[in-house]
Amino acid sequence: VAFPTAGVLLIGNELLSGKVVDENLHYLSTELFALGIDVRRAVVVPDETDEIVEALLDLLRRVDLVITSGGIGPTHDDITVAAVAQALGRPLELDAGLVERVKQVFGDRLDEAHLKMARIPRGTVLVESAQTRFPALVVDRVCVLAGIPKLLRRSFAAIRDRGLLPASRPRLVSTVYVTTDEWTLAPRLDRVVAAFPDVLLGSYPVLDDPGYRVRLVFEARDADRVDEAVSAFVEQLPPGQVVRTERHR
Amino acid sequence: VAFPTAGVLLIGNELLSGKVVDENLHYLSTELFALGIDVRRAVVVPDETDEIVEALLDLLRRVDLVITSGGIGPTHDDITVAAVAQALGRPLELDAGLVERVKQVFGDRLDEAHLKMARIPRGTVLVESAQTRFPALVVDRVCVLAGIPKLLRRSFAAIRDRGLLPASRPRLVSTVYVTTDEWTLAPRLDRVVAAFPDVLLGSYPVLDDPGYRVRLVFEARDADRVDEAVSAFVEQLPPGQVVRTERHR
Repeated sequence: VAFPTAGVLLIGNELLSGKVVDENLHYLSTELFALGIDVRRAVVVPDETDEIVEALLDLLRRVDLVITSGGIGPTHDDITVAAVAQALGRPLELDAGLVERVKQVFGDRLDEAHLKMARIPRGTVLVESAQTRFPALVVDRVCVLAGIPKLLRRSFAAIRDRGLLPASRPRLVSTVYVTTDEWTLAPRLDRVVAAFPDVLLGSYPVLDDPGYRVRLVFEARDADRVDEAVSAFVEQLPPGQVVRTERHR
Repeated sequence: VAFPTAGVLLIGNELLSGKVVDENLHYLSTELFALGIDVRRAVVVPDETDEIVEALLDLLRRVDLVITSGGIGPTHDDITVAAVAQALGRPLELDAGLVERVKQVFGDRLDEAHLKMARIPRGTVLVESAQTRFPALVVDRVCVLAGIPKLLRRSFAAIRDRGLLPASRPRLVSTVYVTTDEWTLAPRLDRVVAAFPDVLLGSYPVLDDPGYRVRLVFEARDADRVDEAVSAFVEQLPPGQVVRTERHR
C-alpha cells in the first residue's frame, strides 16, 4: 500500500536572510504526520516567480500534495497566487464572491492592490476559516496558505476539517531515551534495522541533558511491529540504560 | 558584479515529521547574510542517500556554496558524508589522523561504527573547532556540518574564521515600522520598487502588535540607495504613520 505524501514550499526572502524564524514547517510537519501523510521534502525559496514555479513543479512531481506558505497579500512581494496559477497552467480570474468581499471591506473605490486579492486560479476551491479575512486556496494538488503562522494554522485546520486532505493511516511512534552513547548503540541499531526494515528508526543524541544521551525514535504504520522492534532493541542494552519509553500516535 | 550565493541542505527525517524544530536555517541565513552571501534556497530532505545526493547536486548547480546540516555520526541514519562523496564523485577514504583520533577516544578495539567517523571524501579539508570532538568537512564547494545546533555553530564559525567562505560585500538593511495597512502601502511600495530596482523591499504585516502594522525591510549593497529608497517611501506616508526606522548592517 502506498501512503500519501506531501511537500512543503516556504516562500519568502525573509526566511533566507535570517529576518524571520520559520514556524510553519514544524507545524505542518507535525499535523501531516498525525494524519499519516509523509512529508518527503520542504523547500524554501525567495519571493521570485521563477523560483516558486520551478520549485512547485518539482515538488508536484515528487509528492501527492504540496502546501505553500507565504507570499499572500496585496503588496508587490506577494506573488504566490500568480506563480501557482502559472505553474498549474491555469488562468488567473477575478472571483465575483471575493470582489464582493473586498468591496465590503474597502468600499467601491478599489484599486489594483485590492483586486489582486480577488484574483485566483481557475478552478480554485476557497476554504474559509473563522477570524480570517480571506480564504485559503486549494487548487489541483496545491494548498495555498498565508505565511503568518496564526493564519496558516487556521487555514490548514479548515482544509483538514473540510476533508480536502488525503486519508491515511497514522504511524505509531515509540521513543526510547537511553544513557548509552551512540558508538555503543550503532551496531545494536544496525541489527534492529536489519530485522525490522518496515520500522523507521532515528537516533538523536543530545549534548547537555543530564537525564539521557540519545533519543531513539521507532515508527511504523503497524503498532505491533514498533513494539517488537523496541523490545528487540532494549533487550540488547545493559540493564539500567533505558531511562524511559514513550508510546504515542 | 555577481555576489556569492549559497544553498542550505537540512538532512533528517525528524525535521519532516515534526519531531525536531530546526534552528540551523535561521542561524546559517543570518550569518551568511552578514557576510554578504545570498542564500538562494534551502531544502529539507529525509535520511535517504538518493534524496541527499540529488538535492545536493541540484543546489550545486544553483549556487556557489552549499552548507549541509545533519546526518553526521556513527549510527545507521548518519549517511551524509557518504552521500556527499557520492554526489561529488569522490571516493571515501580512511583518514589516518582521524583514525588516530578515534583510537585515542575508544582505544584500539575499533569496530565499523568507530571507523565510520574516520572515513571522508578524498580531498576533504578538515576544520577543527574548540570543544568539538570531530572536525567539520569542507570538500569542493560543500561544507558538511553536524546537525546539533551548538556543534553546527562552532563548526560554521571555524570555517568562516579560517577564511574558507567566499568574500563579499554585506548588504545594508533599513527597517521601517509603520501603522499603515498593507492595502494602503501597496501602490506606494510599487512606486519605490519601480524607482529603486536595485533595492530589495519586503513587506511583513503583523496581526497582534499594538505598536505597528507592517514592517518594511529595505536592503542593498549600496547604503546610499537604501537611504534614498527609505526617504522616497516615507515621503509618501501621512505624518505620524512611521513608528520608527532601524538602520543596520
